[in-house]
Amino acid sequence: MNERTRARRPGGRSARVGAEVHRAVTDLINERGYGNFTVGDIAARAGVADSSIYRRWGSLETLLGDVALTRLNAQSPMPDTGSLAGDLRTYAANVAREITGPDGLALLRLSVALSSTGHQGLRARDDLLAERARQLQSMLDRAIDRGERAPDALGVLDHILAPMYIRVLLGIGPLTPDYVDGLVDRLL
Amino acid sequence: MNERTRARRPGGRSARVGAEVHRAVTDLINERGYGNFTVGDIAARAGVADSSIYRRWGSLETLLGDVALTRLNAQSPMPDTGSLAGDLRTYAANVAREITGPDGLALLRLSVALSSTGHQGLRARDDLLAERARQLQSMLDRAIDRGERAPDALGVLDHILAPMYIRVLLGIGPLTPDYVDGLVDRLL
Repeated sequence: MNERTRARRPGGRSARVGAEVHRAVTDLINERGYGNFTVGDIAARAGVADSSIYRRWGSLETLLGDVALTRLNAQSPMPDTGSLAGDLRTYAANVAREITGPDGLALLRLSVALSSTGHQGLRARDDLLAERARQLQSMLDRAIDRGERAPDALGVLDHILAPMYIRVLLGIGPLTPDYVDGLVDRLL
Repeated sequence: MNERTRARRPGGRSARVGAEVHRAVTDLINERGYGNFTVGDIAARAGVADSSIYRRWGSLETLLGDVALTRLNAQSPMPDTGSLAGDLRTYAANVAREITGPDGLALLRLSVALSSTGHQGLRARDDLLAERARQLQSMLDRAIDRGERAPDALGVLDHILAPMYIRVLLGIGPLTPDYVDGLVDRLL
């Protein structure tokens, strides 16, 4: 296969490089903490050239945002159990599992760190927030369509997501099912 | 003044260096975001030698923890207004002002970032959390001594502090007095 043929079929290699680079970012966040590695470190870990990363993502911030967004969108779809209490309990349990899972802390740190990294970081963060808000709002809208009283999305952020996020970020205790259900019951 | 005399009176210079280094850290967090600077950057900004920083703080993590703790302890004492509602409203308003102030976001990022920086970082973070929890608990204890019903400290963390922290970290809207009072009223 000559260079010309390779250039016309980049899909397989491109996807493989993307996956390797994403994995390298997640590993480095877990091992060193956000901010303690460079594009060079990522490239070395992923076995690609620095220039490949800059060509594809433009900057470290854009790459980090891409990793966070990809991970977020890979999560299971929002629950649709037929009642708001059921939806919120399932949603809260999913979030708790996600943020206490192997890469959960890294993902959380990325979300709060992104806002400090300038314009591209901000845009990636805002994309991430908008996507989360959109998914949540459609769940709340279904409850309202059924005639249920529903809190607004910011109420869910303040009293279900924020307590779980902060406890994980500060390393305070496990998020037990009773604790997570309790947050939902309290809001409703 | 010979070297011997200087060595016996390090107080003035030591305090000045400490203040310069603390200011350099806060500036760099605000300008570049947590993790995007080194001990060398701090030293250059503060006009001291790298070795002075390592000699005094041992590591970047310990220095960052010291900055956060110093800032925290410089805050006004916990309120004592005679009622739990008054105390919590004043406390919540103080926290809101602190975290939305010029260095507030930097302090918040430092608090959540510290947990990723290994043992010394963790110890600094735990010291910071323990000090906050101790101050808060004494305020709640006073309410209980007066015969009031009081939430526990984790309830205050979950439903007053966490929503404000997450909104500031994610850059969501201002923390208006109505919003902050609402968090307190909701908890009580």
